[in-house]
Amino acid sequence: MTAIARAHPNIALVKYWGKRDEELILPETGSLSMTLDAFPTTTSVTLTPDADEDVFLLGGEAVAGKPLERVVAFLDHVRTLAGSTSRARVESSNEVPTAAGLASSAAGFAALAVAAAAEYGLALSERDLSRLARRGSGSACRSIPDGTGFAIWRAGTDDQSSYAEAVPAPDLRMVVLTLDAGSKSVSSREGMRRSAATSPFHDAWVSSTTQTLVEAEAAAAAGDFTTLGELTESNALRMHAHINGSVPPIRYLAPASIAAFDAIESLRASGVEVYGTADAGPNVVAVCRPGDADAVADALGEIGPTTVVAPGPGARLVSAAVECAE
Amino acid sequence: MTAIARAHPNIALVKYWGKRDEELILPETGSLSMTLDAFPTTTSVTLTPDADEDVFLLGGEAVAGKPLERVVAFLDHVRTLAGSTSRARVESSNEVPTAAGLASSAAGFAALAVAAAAEYGLALSERDLSRLARRGSGSACRSIPDGTGFAIWRAGTDDQSSYAEAVPAPDLRMVVLTLDAGSKSVSSREGMRRSAATSPFHDAWVSSTTQTLVEAEAAAAAGDFTTLGELTESNALRMHAHINGSVPPIRYLAPASIAAFDAIESLRASGVEVYGTADAGPNVVAVCRPGDADAVADALGEIGPTTVVAPGPGARLVSAAVECAE
Repeated sequence: MTAIARAHPNIALVKYWGKRDEELILPETGSLSMTLDAFPTTTSVTLTPDADEDVFLLGGEAVAGKPLERVVAFLDHVRTLAGSTSRARVESSNEVPTAAGLASSAAGFAALAVAAAAEYGLALSERDLSRLARRGSGSACRSIPDGTGFAIWRAGTDDQSSYAEAVPAPDLRMVVLTLDAGSKSVSSREGMRRSAATSPFHDAWVSSTTQTLVEAEAAAAAGDFTTLGELTESNALRMHAHINGSVPPIRYLAPASIAAFDAIESLRASGVEVYGTADAGPNVVAVCRPGDADAVADALGEIGPTTVVAPGPGARLVSAAVECAE
Repeated sequence: MTAIARAHPNIALVKYWGKRDEELILPETGSLSMTLDAFPTTTSVTLTPDADEDVFLLGGEAVAGKPLERVVAFLDHVRTLAGSTSRARVESSNEVPTAAGLASSAAGFAALAVAAAAEYGLALSERDLSRLARRGSGSACRSIPDGTGFAIWRAGTDDQSSYAEAVPAPDLRMVVLTLDAGSKSVSSREGMRRSAATSPFHDAWVSSTTQTLVEAEAAAAAGDFTTLGELTESNALRMHAHINGSVPPIRYLAPASIAAFDAIESLRASGVEVYGTADAGPNVVAVCRPGDADAVADALGEIGPTTVVAPGPGARLVSAAVECAE
């Protein structure tokens, strides 16, 4: 039997940046994201009881090294939960992940969590699937919930209480401006560690983000796009500020990223309500009302290639074909 | 009698950003700067006992509004110290101030302090001249001290204890990259207020800068260019980070500013030891050893016009011609 699942990337409006437990991947603050309706990852998991090792294929190519180790560690956790010792074959494919410059690990581990849970016979609630996905990659837990297209990762205090759930939010669009699809000079993992250890702004980042999330959840629930947008841009700039304060300094934004924030500010001045955000890299994501998405994409299109995305579905099984494993 | 004084701008290696007393212009932290050997301001002050009002000419043009008010308020303070009621005529000229995009207020008030003190008959020590200049514009106090080309503004706790003094430092050059000579969208004064009131990073900015100044003074005294440079770049990025955290956000750096920091990072990677800093605007200043200044100017010259500057003299009287006031 093979279990196949599909999940989509998510982009945070209130950022996750900082772990309080690296082993369990418990975050220092909660976060709020939109799951995209584009760029899904589809992953199949097949038990291979006779095999000595797990196998991981990405886009048809066998993967080794760190990425394989992360998948094996994740499967080890699933096996512990399921009381199984069987190895597995994991096949995963991303639709335009690197070209869009979006982190594929969130969609990847969300899809893997759903497929692996099914294949290993774990009957998990959405909440427990979110907790499971979190163990693979923190933000993956936000790609699990289905319903509104928006999810809040409750920071929690332990493995049990740290999960994402769907929350209401005003309909909006994101315009993803791809400025660099290459790998970062400083990984998110290393960046989080260094900023927590050396940035004087770390404590204030944690406390202000905690407060921002409370305000953003209320604004989202009230359908208050303006407040949600203002909080989004402020929170993103604060995340980069916190990171800039590290020793040695880390700077993820490129000249064109600043040009994008400038263009967004100009659009706002001209009456188009749009706000900017950026993860740990140069790409900028503009957040706007659905009716303004084309105008925003046109304006940012002068800086680089853009993609308009809407709220998307949660992670789910897409089929489960019965096969002979041998 | 007319007193004429000349002073040069200074650029901070450890930044002044935040007042704890707006009236006395007492800073929240001390700061460290290099006084430039370029772009001087020359200012003459002539008592006009028969006049009803002060007159202020800048570059030969009569000045009105806010700039005049600041000069009159400064002269009022001088008159109080001198026990005089006489009005004065102030003539000031800047050499390429706006074209270089450098704040002219530091050199301007340093020159005015020296000329006005002489003209009003105040015999002030260098320290007291620094305190006096501070009342006109905070960073002006750093353009007073003569000797090493470098000054530390001791934050102090009151008017008496807040002044700048010369400190030893390794010989170095600054390469000023002029990206915008226009006026800022958000003034330094307003930016300081907003970041102190709304940025979650304010307290950490103050405490980390206080610590950075201790380390920078020690590095400068030891002739440790590398440590001084690393602290300079870190402190500048932290100042901008602190500012970015404001509500609404303030961003002073332009796309080309980031390109300059990227170029500086590339130069470092190629073995040229150079560090970047930036005040509350888009211009970037590269700090390097004297022997590397031309290479740095060449590299940054691809982004915009550059000027190489060396440590310069303190503010001083340049002549005092006896004239008939009437």
